[in-house]
Amino acid sequence: MRHARDPRGVAGLSPQQALTEASSLRRLTTGRIATLTLDAPHSRNALSLAMMDALGSELRAIAGDAAIACVVIAAVGPVFCAGHDLREIAAARAGPDGGAVFFSTLMARCSALMQAIVELPQPVIAAVEGLATAAGCQLVAACDLAVAGEGAQFCTPGVDIGLFCSTPGVALARNVSRKHAMEMLLTGARIDAETALRFGLVNRVAAAGGALPEALRFAGEIAGKSAQAIGFGKKAFYRQLGMALPEAYELAGRTMVENLLATDAKEGIAAFLEKRSPHWMGT
Amino acid sequence: MRHARDPRGVAGLSPQQALTEASSLRRLTTGRIATLTLDAPHSRNALSLAMMDALGSELRAIAGDAAIACVVIAAVGPVFCAGHDLREIAAARAGPDGGAVFFSTLMARCSALMQAIVELPQPVIAAVEGLATAAGCQLVAACDLAVAGEGAQFCTPGVDIGLFCSTPGVALARNVSRKHAMEMLLTGARIDAETALRFGLVNRVAAAGGALPEALRFAGEIAGKSAQAIGFGKKAFYRQLGMALPEAYELAGRTMVENLLATDAKEGIAAFLEKRSPHWMGT
Amino acid sequence: MRHARDPRGVAGLSPQQALTEASSLRRLTTGRIATLTLDAPHSRNALSLAMMDALGSELRAIAGDAAIACVVIAAVGPVFCAGHDLREIAAARAGPDGGAVFFSTLMARCSALMQAIVELPQPVIAAVEGLATAAGCQLVAACDLAVAGEGAQFCTPGVDIGLFCSTPGVALARNVSRKHAMEMLLTGARIDAETALRFGLVNRVAAAGGALPEALRFAGEIAGKSAQAIGFGKKAFYRQLGMALPEAYELAGRTMVENLLATDAKEGIAAFLEKRSPHWMGT
Repeated sequence: MRHARDPRGVAGLSPQQALTEASSLRRLTTGRIATLTLDAPHSRNALSLAMMDALGSELRAIAGDAAIACVVIAAVGPVFCAGHDLREIAAARAGPDGGAVFFSTLMARCSALMQAIVELPQPVIAAVEGLATAAGCQLVAACDLAVAGEGAQFCTPGVDIGLFCSTPGVALARNVSRKHAMEMLLTGARIDAETALRFGLVNRVAAAGGALPEALRFAGEIAGKSAQAIGFGKKAFYRQLGMALPEAYELAGRTMVENLLATDAKEGIAAFLEKRSPHWMGT
Repeated sequence: MRHARDPRGVAGLSPQQALTEASSLRRLTTGRIATLTLDAPHSRNALSLAMMDALGSELRAIAGDAAIACVVIAAVGPVFCAGHDLREIAAARAGPDGGAVFFSTLMARCSALMQAIVELPQPVIAAVEGLATAAGCQLVAACDLAVAGEGAQFCTPGVDIGLFCSTPGVALARNVSRKHAMEMLLTGARIDAETALRFGLVNRVAAAGGALPEALRFAGEIAGKSAQAIGFGKKAFYRQLGMALPEAYELAGRTMVENLLATDAKEGIAAFLEKRSPHWMGT
Repeated sequence: MRHARDPRGVAGLSPQQALTEASSLRRLTTGRIATLTLDAPHSRNALSLAMMDALGSELRAIAGDAAIACVVIAAVGPVFCAGHDLREIAAARAGPDGGAVFFSTLMARCSALMQAIVELPQPVIAAVEGLATAAGCQLVAACDLAVAGEGAQFCTPGVDIGLFCSTPGVALARNVSRKHAMEMLLTGARIDAETALRFGLVNRVAAAGGALPEALRFAGEIAGKSAQAIGFGKKAFYRQLGMALPEAYELAGRTMVENLLATDAKEGIAAFLEKRSPHWMGT
């Protein structure tokens, strides 16, 4: 992990170093927005164990950091994220256990990463240029919001290598309708940004190259809201989704009461009634 | 609650009376369609306790009234429904318990109202002109069907006052895809009628001012069907939604057998085979 | 059930025979694709007990047949499938028990058929020309994928005969959004192919008359993938849908590990890294 303040630039690394270093994730903090940039274009920003560890570690730090209100995940190069690292997989496949232990670790880490995005108190926005494939597409689906550049593409092509994208399907099926998910999973075909918008996989389509600025504008809108309220709400939102209606309302109602009793709601309602801007104090 | 036959017209009330009276809900019964009109434009048709009680009370009466086949919910003024009454909330917030008891009551009443719509044997259609915001947007989402006038807008802007729209999110997430719901909840931004149509929050968009006539046409289509069959079906529909496939089919199958053995199915099938119009007898 | 090799052609049957024979389902096997054609146009391809038995029996055979990679369901005539056979129902209604035993059997068989499609290891694609109504619309919704010809129409008009389409609603609600499903179920109105595409009930719209060739092209894409991987993936996909996120990822992760350890993933990954076409061995 290199932070933006790190004096070593990616330009100072040979492609080989960029491939193998854990430091292929960059973080840039601008105001209350943290941008995590996958910066391993030569390995197509694959979710190697090292890359997943770097992402997970950043998210853990952000979860406890009240100064951060919103997270953007972006990437360098023509591929947003290629999913798992097939060379890692092929190497493990050649081991004495045929890769069994490694594969279990890989799945557990990847699923934990995706759930860490869902559980993060702050909203996470994917800013997608280029191709988001397999677990890379899952990463987009797992985010709360997503913006795509016009040339972005999305696919779950595991079937082409004999490996159905079952875990990406978990996130995908929670974004798009069943037949759309099955079409992507069964054919492995790429869909373009407009189709992803129509399916509900992304929220906005920007001009080619404009996904990151648009995601930052989106993040800026959100960063102006009460992070305390968003923390209450995001948590309750995902929990209630799978519940029957009475339980869902019970949980959401309790959450709103807690939220109403907290500092920011008091300030927000007062500011609204007094026709002034609120000053958020909550964390 | 004033019924249409009530000689006092809303015009006879001062704005202050309209704000404070429980009688800010009007009911008009036309044939087998009951139209409930939120008529407190000066309080932006807020879901005050009084307004929710009036709505709940009407729905309870309709639930047992075999003469009513369909319900339309409409509103007077530029705001369809502004959600909870912030003055009620601010007043409670100033109380000795910081509003805790009142907020719990408010949430319980609101959630019960939304579930009463889902549990009503008759279909409920929202006819939306103007702005449906927060619990007002939830009201639209909780209805079985919705029609919007071209100028209608929808939002869940609780984040702007430090109060995430968690309970509106329950209904919203059961209408639109996850990323669409999160966008509305996190930004609080207004979506227009066409976007609401694309998201699945409304079924039809009418010309500006045409939501109510279009909803009444919609209701008229439905009122010509067997209310008995609709009673069986609506109940099973919402119950099976959260079930695994075998349980869902088990429930729906049992429902269809009951429905097949009831009077209207006998009449309906006979009429169909005899190429004549059915005469519904069931209730 | 007549197979394509059966010397008796449908042309050799009188309309009356076509109505009453169990042999109103045709199967044609082309390469690894099995096409099941409902061929009872004079009974509007109704899902009589005989037709459902024929379909169920074919699906059971295909489930164990590693030579088949994909299934297409098509139909002959202007009606894709009219749902249950109302004459069967009316006859049972006239029996001493009012049809109770028959209706329970009918629902159980129909629900089992729809679930057999979901549980089939091979993907199933509906190729719809003409009208898919009631349980016929359910059949389309139950398939993994669907293609419609431009003139295709879809509806769940049980309400018109006093019989709410509760079981079709189970499949429909798992394809389209809640308000769209309720609109179809409450009005019984027909939606056209473009609307079905927008709702998510079908994946592709072909020119009128072009649904079957397009479905076969779609099936051809899928038949070139690893059937072993698809078998793993389809099963996990439908099981995880109703689960909370941790359980869903747990199941999907275990599935991917199994899939990774199987023959086709080894071959597929090797072929990808060696930039050659894979040779699937798995079944």
